[in-house]
Amino acid sequence: MPKITFLPTNSTIDVPSDENLLKAAMRAGVHVNASCGGAGVCNKCRIFVESGQVKGEELPDGGWKACATYPLTDVTIRVPVESEMDRKALARPGAAKAVSWISTHGASVKWRLHPAVAKIKLDLPEPSLQDHESDLSRLRRELGQGHFQGISFNVDSQVLYTLPESLRSSGWNVTASIMEGRKSDVRRLIRVEPGDCLSQHYAVAVDIGTTTVSAQLLDLTTEKIIGEKSNYNPQVSYGEDVISRMEFAKGVDGLFVLQEKIAACLNGLVQELLEENEVSPDDLSLMTIAANTVMTHFLLGLETRFLRAQPYVPVASRFMPVRAAEIGIKVPEHVRIFLAPCVASYVGGDIVAGVVGVGLNHNPELTLFIDIGTNGEIVLGNQDWMACAACSAGPAFEGGGIQHGMRATTGAIEVVHIHPETYEPMALSIGGKKAKGICGSGIISLLAGLFMTGVLDQQGKFRRDLNTDRVRQGKNGWEYVVVEGSAAATGQDIVFTEADVENLIRAKGAMFAGYLTLLESVGMGIEDLDRVILAGNFGSYLDLDQAITIGLLPDLPRDKFFFAGNSSLIGARAAAFSWQAFGEMNEVSKMMTHFDLSDNPQFMDHYVSCLFLPHTDRNLFPSVQFAAG
Amino acid sequence: MPKITFLPTNSTIDVPSDENLLKAAMRAGVHVNASCGGAGVCNKCRIFVESGQVKGEELPDGGWKACATYPLTDVTIRVPVESEMDRKALARPGAAKAVSWISTHGASVKWRLHPAVAKIKLDLPEPSLQDHESDLSRLRRELGQGHFQGISFNVDSQVLYTLPESLRSSGWNVTASIMEGRKSDVRRLIRVEPGDCLSQHYAVAVDIGTTTVSAQLLDLTTEKIIGEKSNYNPQVSYGEDVISRMEFAKGVDGLFVLQEKIAACLNGLVQELLEENEVSPDDLSLMTIAANTVMTHFLLGLETRFLRAQPYVPVASRFMPVRAAEIGIKVPEHVRIFLAPCVASYVGGDIVAGVVGVGLNHNPELTLFIDIGTNGEIVLGNQDWMACAACSAGPAFEGGGIQHGMRATTGAIEVVHIHPETYEPMALSIGGKKAKGICGSGIISLLAGLFMTGVLDQQGKFRRDLNTDRVRQGKNGWEYVVVEGSAAATGQDIVFTEADVENLIRAKGAMFAGYLTLLESVGMGIEDLDRVILAGNFGSYLDLDQAITIGLLPDLPRDKFFFAGNSSLIGARAAAFSWQAFGEMNEVSKMMTHFDLSDNPQFMDHYVSCLFLPHTDRNLFPSVQFAAG
Repeated sequence: MPKITFLPTNSTIDVPSDENLLKAAMRAGVHVNASCGGAGVCNKCRIFVESGQVKGEELPDGGWKACATYPLTDVTIRVPVESEMDRKALARPGAAKAVSWISTHGASVKWRLHPAVAKIKLDLPEPSLQDHESDLSRLRRELGQGHFQGISFNVDSQVLYTLPESLRSSGWNVTASIMEGRKSDVRRLIRVEPGDCLSQHYAVAVDIGTTTVSAQLLDLTTEKIIGEKSNYNPQVSYGEDVISRMEFAKGVDGLFVLQEKIAACLNGLVQELLEENEVSPDDLSLMTIAANTVMTHFLLGLETRFLRAQPYVPVASRFMPVRAAEIGIKVPEHVRIFLAPCVASYVGGDIVAGVVGVGLNHNPELTLFIDIGTNGEIVLGNQDWMACAACSAGPAFEGGGIQHGMRATTGAIEVVHIHPETYEPMALSIGGKKAKGICGSGIISLLAGLFMTGVLDQQGKFRRDLNTDRVRQGKNGWEYVVVEGSAAATGQDIVFTEADVENLIRAKGAMFAGYLTLLESVGMGIEDLDRVILAGNFGSYLDLDQAITIGLLPDLPRDKFFFAGNSSLIGARAAAFSWQAFGEMNEVSKMMTHFDLSDNPQFMDHYVSCLFLPHTDRNLFPSVQFAAG
Repeated sequence: MPKITFLPTNSTIDVPSDENLLKAAMRAGVHVNASCGGAGVCNKCRIFVESGQVKGEELPDGGWKACATYPLTDVTIRVPVESEMDRKALARPGAAKAVSWISTHGASVKWRLHPAVAKIKLDLPEPSLQDHESDLSRLRRELGQGHFQGISFNVDSQVLYTLPESLRSSGWNVTASIMEGRKSDVRRLIRVEPGDCLSQHYAVAVDIGTTTVSAQLLDLTTEKIIGEKSNYNPQVSYGEDVISRMEFAKGVDGLFVLQEKIAACLNGLVQELLEENEVSPDDLSLMTIAANTVMTHFLLGLETRFLRAQPYVPVASRFMPVRAAEIGIKVPEHVRIFLAPCVASYVGGDIVAGVVGVGLNHNPELTLFIDIGTNGEIVLGNQDWMACAACSAGPAFEGGGIQHGMRATTGAIEVVHIHPETYEPMALSIGGKKAKGICGSGIISLLAGLFMTGVLDQQGKFRRDLNTDRVRQGKNGWEYVVVEGSAAATGQDIVFTEADVENLIRAKGAMFAGYLTLLESVGMGIEDLDRVILAGNFGSYLDLDQAITIGLLPDLPRDKFFFAGNSSLIGARAAAFSWQAFGEMNEVSKMMTHFDLSDNPQFMDHYVSCLFLPHTDRNLFPSVQFAAG
């Protein structure tokens, strides 16, 4: 892998031959002006090759376009003076990232492989005139003689339709599917297949997010993930966030439409997973689904009117196994969905599944579990106790309510660096395409960069006296121009406004006030935290220093941070492989003390103090370097 | 009520003014020739009025037509010489009938009123920000504080759809329907209604017979029968008996058609019951159904192929509560059907329900429980043990396999008396209409009468040397002419053939051999029986002496016989009112030792001995007077 040395900072980095030099510079912590996102349009990312060979695009007035140039050998690059920063301003050689929870802690807790549906092989004696019990009694008798002694069995009526044929076509050798129940001494016979079908035993685990739905096909015999698929939640057409969807649900057939949409989405994912992995739908034994409370209600077709108004009451928070077919999922009738239990209207099954997925309930360390998504949910606790809360942070960190905010797709600016002297941006877009807007991580790095370079003050206002055209008074008030219209996919300037900053400060303030309120409720402070676990995809690309700089995350040693990825899906998967893990979800949902922050005076006090960058109390952020203040 | 005195026997009887004098004579044990069934056609039932006043039809050559004449005052009647019998031949003043079990023993056992579904009124605290548990958790919490402490609840998913509205529309006062379960510490919440609905709590109990379906609407609050309806089983179109229907079920869609037919029949009965009694379908809490094993299979749509072939194995014999809607019964989704458990292919839920209905399992007396219907089933035992068997008696006693046999409907000859000297019949038809054929009770009285008068010998052959035209050689062998064609509705002679007699002897022989086999299996004999209970409608009009005479019933003191009526329906009703009664059905179905008589050598020996009138061993029938032999 070619080694690149950037002059004058003498920073070095190994670069894969398909990574352009602009991206490489960003990774190396080297600023190169770039204001089209790396789409090859703005021509600002000029660099000079001092030694070594590159291929790419040379500029007519000398130098190469960094965003379109790739190393062929080890290369020494000189960053021109217009991009060059004072060496001391380059505080860090690379972004501090949270460590993957999975890679450091293994695939969460190790539960015994023990799905909620077990397959058992049975070899029945043939009936005779002396032994002419009914087919079902014969089966029950055999079950009672094995390791199900003393267990009584309920039976799905569907079993009876195929039972005589299954028994006789296989010479009385069958595979029975036995489902666990609420009580350990009662199980349910849900299926009888002819012959030995022990190894045809699969599950689908699903995380239904407000925006994205992810599903995994699991082999319940080998405990392996066979495939994974995800798709946008099609309910998005009826509202970006849960509030607007609940509003839609109030209309005629609204709830019905939303239920149908999510069922159709699940059908698509399940079908793709099964087809691509050549697994028959018949071999599906169960499904597990984790989702927030609103998504869970929509999935079941339950009324959400009372979820959204005070005192925010769900119809149900813990659910019986539901027949998948009953809610429109096109799988055989025996397939049940095990739903992760919810805690409250805005602390749902995704959080409970996530907490169990990362094994928070198995660990004595004081952990702050943070899920920053369309909303923000936090859990504080350890194996002995847990407190949780939802912060009405809003979707700002997903680009919602931000003038040029957008989802993290091609053309979204995902990372921005601000030159500390010229205030010129180094912006990279996803896919290196012409920029369309700014996604969550771009927003955080932009906010942090503007604050670190003093372009923004602690109140979130742009300094009016800077020597740059980038900060200007636009038609919506003061703003910073990230990408000029000439270089943008839209043809219009992509700007970041004071109103955007205000939204972000409110959002991060709500989160941080939430941490402090939960900690205070147990007489603790930030310093008592042993670990912070970041849930959601958000955590994996988050620049910790930036997130701490803007006051979104607490200022703790960076090695205390972990990202869990889609912990909701991890929890759903754990529940599919292990009945114990599913049981733990129910226990966790019961042990969590839920704090409703909406009328909590402590929260309101903290919130007001948090409406600064990073916080009114600088002592809470000892590691943050203030450029201005 | 006018008193009628018949001369020359001087028999007297009170006669309601709407009863004709032919029927009155029959009740009084007075023979009057009548060979059209009492339809006013044959003009043979001439009588003379010696004193008192009558209205009716006078015959041109003097006297009155008994079948068309009614008393206005006390009347003295002289029976003319052609009808008159030698006084001594008139053995009995009236038929000995079994006593009604219900009237002597009360409405079966007294179980505590405790339906499988209980309605409970709940007054929930309104939610607040401090108490914002989900609607369902709130309900569970309240249930757990009442007399359901320590009970865990499963919940029907349908409950959740209406729960928020039910709670809020009623100011948090609701009525919950709680269903009993397999385990006493697990119940199921199946319904939540707004307000106080404790008294809107009904059940439908059903007996599905091969021929007739009967249903009762029950008020579960007052323990009253609100209405009763019955109808023919529409499956009759696809086969008179269970064997031919099972044959039909083997064809394409056969099972589906039979299932649909019985569901439609139940729908009709339920709808009529509800409408006529102004009960809303919503107020139906449960259904109970008792049926033989084949009917139960058809109801559930279960394969019957293995029921009908050796070793006669049902798909299932005990059943989980089934959602009525799932099998096509148009009632609300919460309504479950509790099915009486079966014992074997030919000892079904009707027998189990019957046994529990008459409380056989609560009584120390040795009881023979007999159900003579399309097939014959017998149970021997008491509260401590039970043996049961099905006798492939066939439907001869329902008119099946008898040349002019028919069901007990209008125009069926239901009773026949044979003149001991002239061998002229005195035949009465149902409704006094022109005779179409002979129904079960008519067949028994005909067989008994012909045997008692010596028209038939012990082998069931007609004496060829009698001085009567009634006995003749027909195209199907020797026969007795019951109704001449000129007086019959069909215009053809209604005859009773030696082949008919042979069928009947085989049928009664199978029954009697069954009694003996079961008794022998426990080292007992006929004399040890404390009681005989006759189930089915058959028992209520059965002439005990006649049935004993032909060897269908054991020769015991007549006061040991009881008829229970539709004991299957009685049992289904008991199960609707009492969860305990339903539980007893399951216990009874397990405690019954089933004897398969089809390959039982003792049974075969007994059977051969039973192929005589009444039996080869006359000592078994001490009270039977033999006219010939």
